[in-house]
Amino acid sequence: MANIAKKVSWSGRGDDRGERTPLMNGAEEVKYNNRQFSGGSIFHIGRLSTVDLEEEITPEEDFVRSRPKEIPHNEKLLSLKYESLDYDNSENQLFLEEERRMSHMGFGCLEIKRWVICGLIGFLTGLIACCIDIVVENLAGFKYFLVKQNIEKFTEVGGLSISLILWAVLNSAFVMVGAIIVAFIEPVAAGSGIPQIKCYLNGVKVPRVVRLKTLVVKVFGVIFSVAGGLAVGKEGPMIHSGAVVAAGVSQGRSTSLKKDFKMFEYFRRDTEKRDFVSAGAAAGVSAAFGAPVGGVLFSLEEGASFWNQMLTWRIFFASMISSFTLNFFLSIYHKKPGELSSPGLINFGRFDSDIVEYNLYEIPLFIIMGALGGLLGALFNVLNYWLTIFRIRYVHRPCLQVMEAMLVAAVTATVSFAMIYFSNDCQPLGPDHNEEYPLQLFCSDGEYNSMATAFFNTPERSVRSLFHNPPGTYNPVTLGVFTLAYFFLAVWTYGLAVSAGVFIPSLLIGAAWGRLFGILLSFIASSQSIWADPGKYALIGAAAQLGGIVRMTLSLTVIMVEATGNVTYGFPIMLVLMTAKIVGDYFAEGLYDVHIKLQSVPFLHWEAPHTSHWLTAREVMSSPVTCFNQVDKVGTIVDVLSDTSTNHNGFPVVVHSTGDEPGKLCGLILRSQLIVLLKHKVFVERASSRLTQRKLQLKDFRDAYPRFPPIQSIHVSQDERECMMDLTEFMNPTPYTVPQETSLPRVFKLFRALGLRHLVVIDGDNMVVGLVSRKDLARYHLGKHGLEELHLAQT
Amino acid sequence: MANIAKKVSWSGRGDDRGERTPLMNGAEEVKYNNRQFSGGSIFHIGRLSTVDLEEEITPEEDFVRSRPKEIPHNEKLLSLKYESLDYDNSENQLFLEEERRMSHMGFGCLEIKRWVICGLIGFLTGLIACCIDIVVENLAGFKYFLVKQNIEKFTEVGGLSISLILWAVLNSAFVMVGAIIVAFIEPVAAGSGIPQIKCYLNGVKVPRVVRLKTLVVKVFGVIFSVAGGLAVGKEGPMIHSGAVVAAGVSQGRSTSLKKDFKMFEYFRRDTEKRDFVSAGAAAGVSAAFGAPVGGVLFSLEEGASFWNQMLTWRIFFASMISSFTLNFFLSIYHKKPGELSSPGLINFGRFDSDIVEYNLYEIPLFIIMGALGGLLGALFNVLNYWLTIFRIRYVHRPCLQVMEAMLVAAVTATVSFAMIYFSNDCQPLGPDHNEEYPLQLFCSDGEYNSMATAFFNTPERSVRSLFHNPPGTYNPVTLGVFTLAYFFLAVWTYGLAVSAGVFIPSLLIGAAWGRLFGILLSFIASSQSIWADPGKYALIGAAAQLGGIVRMTLSLTVIMVEATGNVTYGFPIMLVLMTAKIVGDYFAEGLYDVHIKLQSVPFLHWEAPHTSHWLTAREVMSSPVTCFNQVDKVGTIVDVLSDTSTNHNGFPVVVHSTGDEPGKLCGLILRSQLIVLLKHKVFVERASSRLTQRKLQLKDFRDAYPRFPPIQSIHVSQDERECMMDLTEFMNPTPYTVPQETSLPRVFKLFRALGLRHLVVIDGDNMVVGLVSRKDLARYHLGKHGLEELHLAQT
Repeated sequence: MANIAKKVSWSGRGDDRGERTPLMNGAEEVKYNNRQFSGGSIFHIGRLSTVDLEEEITPEEDFVRSRPKEIPHNEKLLSLKYESLDYDNSENQLFLEEERRMSHMGFGCLEIKRWVICGLIGFLTGLIACCIDIVVENLAGFKYFLVKQNIEKFTEVGGLSISLILWAVLNSAFVMVGAIIVAFIEPVAAGSGIPQIKCYLNGVKVPRVVRLKTLVVKVFGVIFSVAGGLAVGKEGPMIHSGAVVAAGVSQGRSTSLKKDFKMFEYFRRDTEKRDFVSAGAAAGVSAAFGAPVGGVLFSLEEGASFWNQMLTWRIFFASMISSFTLNFFLSIYHKKPGELSSPGLINFGRFDSDIVEYNLYEIPLFIIMGALGGLLGALFNVLNYWLTIFRIRYVHRPCLQVMEAMLVAAVTATVSFAMIYFSNDCQPLGPDHNEEYPLQLFCSDGEYNSMATAFFNTPERSVRSLFHNPPGTYNPVTLGVFTLAYFFLAVWTYGLAVSAGVFIPSLLIGAAWGRLFGILLSFIASSQSIWADPGKYALIGAAAQLGGIVRMTLSLTVIMVEATGNVTYGFPIMLVLMTAKIVGDYFAEGLYDVHIKLQSVPFLHWEAPHTSHWLTAREVMSSPVTCFNQVDKVGTIVDVLSDTSTNHNGFPVVVHSTGDEPGKLCGLILRSQLIVLLKHKVFVERASSRLTQRKLQLKDFRDAYPRFPPIQSIHVSQDERECMMDLTEFMNPTPYTVPQETSLPRVFKLFRALGLRHLVVIDGDNMVVGLVSRKDLARYHLGKHGLEELHLAQT
Repeated sequence: MANIAKKVSWSGRGDDRGERTPLMNGAEEVKYNNRQFSGGSIFHIGRLSTVDLEEEITPEEDFVRSRPKEIPHNEKLLSLKYESLDYDNSENQLFLEEERRMSHMGFGCLEIKRWVICGLIGFLTGLIACCIDIVVENLAGFKYFLVKQNIEKFTEVGGLSISLILWAVLNSAFVMVGAIIVAFIEPVAAGSGIPQIKCYLNGVKVPRVVRLKTLVVKVFGVIFSVAGGLAVGKEGPMIHSGAVVAAGVSQGRSTSLKKDFKMFEYFRRDTEKRDFVSAGAAAGVSAAFGAPVGGVLFSLEEGASFWNQMLTWRIFFASMISSFTLNFFLSIYHKKPGELSSPGLINFGRFDSDIVEYNLYEIPLFIIMGALGGLLGALFNVLNYWLTIFRIRYVHRPCLQVMEAMLVAAVTATVSFAMIYFSNDCQPLGPDHNEEYPLQLFCSDGEYNSMATAFFNTPERSVRSLFHNPPGTYNPVTLGVFTLAYFFLAVWTYGLAVSAGVFIPSLLIGAAWGRLFGILLSFIASSQSIWADPGKYALIGAAAQLGGIVRMTLSLTVIMVEATGNVTYGFPIMLVLMTAKIVGDYFAEGLYDVHIKLQSVPFLHWEAPHTSHWLTAREVMSSPVTCFNQVDKVGTIVDVLSDTSTNHNGFPVVVHSTGDEPGKLCGLILRSQLIVLLKHKVFVERASSRLTQRKLQLKDFRDAYPRFPPIQSIHVSQDERECMMDLTEFMNPTPYTVPQETSLPRVFKLFRALGLRHLVVIDGDNMVVGLVSRKDLARYHLGKHGLEELHLAQT
């Protein structure tokens, strides 16, 4: 026990408004401290609440508590508050009996149900995307209409400061609503949700991330934050929304609403749920970017331990339906029913192949732009990292968070206004202009202020203008200043307690400097007509900047190509993204990875660190392990489960346990299973009376899923404590095992490939010697000085 | 032993021109019969030659032998001639020592080497594609030029039969050369090579499939068969070529050429090689279709047990380089250097978004076309299946195969000629016609024969014409007759002893009936201008037909979209491919799967059959298992290895083996490792004298890889037989194990996810009770009447 306990380097007191996690899962043995630290405002993957027992306050801990605002939060820690998903089926007798009873036809029905669920997921995700889009458009339109009228009124008579105040107040009001619901109701809905979904697909059970409440807060949060004019996009949150929809639909019930449709009961386990959530995430990507293939790739990249063809097809189906639904309803909304031209929330507009061919000698330029994107992306991430640390330390109260969000909204409005005001970049207003709100301001009649088009617009429209407006629309100085201002605004905005994504701001920053790059090029080599189109460089710049910030890989390439709608750009986009990734990785990690690390999530990467071959299972495992006998006393079991100093979730079951020595392994049982058994009082002594009683079925386990009651809520009388429980029927009789000499990379590979939660370590006689869980593997990582070990902590 | 031997249902005598497989790998124990059956002409995944011992000729076998031409070949068999790849690293002490010695920098170097290799793979694959393209174009051009001159000469004066003969003879001559090199030199180069690569990526060691000789024969074979006017494409073989290039480059040597560059020695094992081969296959797809992302998906779909991000990136890199190389060299060849407009061998031409938008009400039409494609595809596969059975029985001699190929070539020419001759579909020759060889024939001046454009062209050009020629170019009757004729020609052609792919013929058939469909639609609803463009329907038809025949999934969608160069079509193509797959799967399997089954390859699908939960490891495993002690007598080892009645490849190593009872498992050693140990005489007794000798290193194993010598070639003296061998250092001390109660799906999942070759089955005391290998798992499949078991056979 001590071998892990000593690794708990610090813990701080936080609020525990979050709901109580009923199970103290995770196989490590850790001494709980009653003080913990709220996860910070930025990336609330649920707040931990452990058992509140005042015990063993060491002087050091006391010292920490005395300075609650300067907690040494850093990314060299691994939080113990995250559990793993049970992706590995517990193939106990009940399960096998059910599977064996099922006919070929029965499996066919299940398969059809899976398809139906995926269709529903796609449909609902598309519908949500459609609603968000329409509401945001109308709200933002109303706001810009008001402000524009006001500005026009005051331009002549003076007193534009009133317009500024109006704008700032409108923005702040919207953002305040968005921030309040996030900060006070559901902090896990903050941000884009992509890091949380990445963690979920990786196999980490992030508390409350796929709840209905989260979805509602997310949807309203994103509407208000985008309408509030923040430097955010509505695309990232769609991925989270899709995942929640999937988790809800696939279970055929809502625990929050206390409504059980008695459907899809077969799918009530982590294995199936995670598969559906990957379909939901894909549907979200698909709706956000009109990129069904990109969505599938995103899900597979993040979630696939194992490529399953049927699953891939279903994910693909959900993605297609989602994109189609969005397209269909938006076409009706735009009064062009049947014209399927907007498959995603973001629309890059049409790139015609004629205008935008590229030539061989442009490739080095693309590579330079990729490198630039990587550099700027790394800068973005580093700045945001520092800001996040600052926020974790000082801005962790909900009201502070709301105030910060409002401040950012007001500053965004002020900066925008100032830039519009001081820029005198007037452009002629052509007959076929596509600006929705051309602001004349101080320009002469028939002209409009070009800086205003960049700020006085939803970011999506600004991106499109940068891609497609004809050469000469933008003044280079305007673009430069805009890039600079928007870059810092976006850095500041990401991590606020609002639901918002970073895709669109990244694209906008990149498009701005990309277009600037293109304009400068055409100055240098004015003779070449091929340089003439700065829209092409805006696209490449957008890809470079986005790649530099988020560092997604194959999926991002496909998403960009699909969103562009033209394969011609495939090769340059790939090249740029690859360069941006290589350059960016040299300086800093991707934005999502930064935030995952800051939350100390036990995230399993693709492979164990290269230089970890000298570690074996014996070194990484947790031991000693609490085991149960096949037939064990109820009292013993209750005591072990109630023991707050150990928070095991999986218990090896052994044949003969004499004294301290662990016995021969014969199975593995989960805490959740034991709790259901205790709840139903499945004791050997009651077996005779059970003849009348119905036998415990898999259904009982499914009904309790996923919120198993805590052990404290189960009453066991003193008599019952003396009864015996026979675990044989309920334990998984064939858990995966490794010998204790197995090297860490080998253990890692097995664990990751099969999505395990517990891996039993045995010796040559099949005796249990230890247990490997996610945290034991995630804590080794490759640092600057070779292999490093993260400390485990109750963050 | 008997439990497997009885499953050998039949065997026939075949020629064993193929080289001797040195190792009788596979863990099953099988009595070898000296008769075996040549794999047939169609899908020569290497010929087996086992040990020739005349033994136990049962009456039934005698009966079979007496009718060598009517062997009951069917797909309900599983061949024992295929070995598995050792995708699981043998983490023995030597390996671990090497890994531990290696610094962080060392791993970095390895990573860079991997990237360099992938770059080389891409470059060489692109270069090969480029060469094939240029040579085919010139050869075919020359042929058509000759025939056209001849036809024009004889049109006026009569005697067109001479032209026909000239055409037929030219075709046959080309095809003869192509067929001879395939049938006599390297039968494994026949066909498209995609089934073989699928098997290889699945983990089956297909003999001689990634050899240099195969590549050479493949390249020349495809050139001659395409130039010979067969209904074939040059795209499929590119995938095989890419894989061979990858296998060669990554090993840094050629065993055939006896040339060792002493490079990349670290990669000389199956794990690394298979990863590179998947990059090569992706590069091949990329070069063939200009579809880098599609290539990556193809490789991942077929080969990924496990999605590894770095591997995905490298595959992607190889694909990009390959497409770029092809594009670059072709642009130089076409005298437009730097204009990167032909990223693949097949070029669908440019689809402009304006012309080819689709509308909501067209979607049901697309679905109908998808269903039609599925039906026609299933018909194609069923016809080809019967034809293949016929060929296996009657056309298995190389000279017969060559004659058949020549016959097909002559018939193709005759049919083409007849259709051109009898069609009087004259079309005006516009000023901007893009027919390279417009045949006037009996048309009046200024007109040309439109049927001739379909036949008098390489299939790629015909596809492009069908996609892009303006409405009215083709007469519906012409198209109908063409579809019919080409369909049967293509069915007949696939499976000939020539190197050729089925992609282009499928696309051509589909494009023809798709265009016909479009023309008919415009007749029905002549008012709607949107129906006007039959090129759109040609594209959809092509996708439907291809999907119906090959049934690839996500990758095919992406390939089609990338080849089209326009994302607008993404959704309809997905829809059509999905419909085609669902409809087609109802009637018959995909073409590649049909051929894989006919070759009885132990191919592991995605999952174990649904209804196999009632089977456990105990039932599926092979037992008893031949085990070795940690320190065992050389004589015993040599005897076991030489014993032709057992052909184990992996041997569990046990601690105490007293008598018959197997002991406690402590490791696993491979036949190949034992052979290297015997060759180097690593005996305990020689340990003292070894002080001067150098210690056996991993390098010695790598040098012997992949063609380990047969046991017969190793001389062990009588004295040496009494020596002892200590296996501790060389065995894999941590093989994966399962308890004997594990259900088949669970065993399957572990086996498939980690790409295993041997899985040791143990009891509760860690005693070895059996061994599961690929054939034990592949033999269960879901038939029409529930779970079926395939018979194992020496096919």
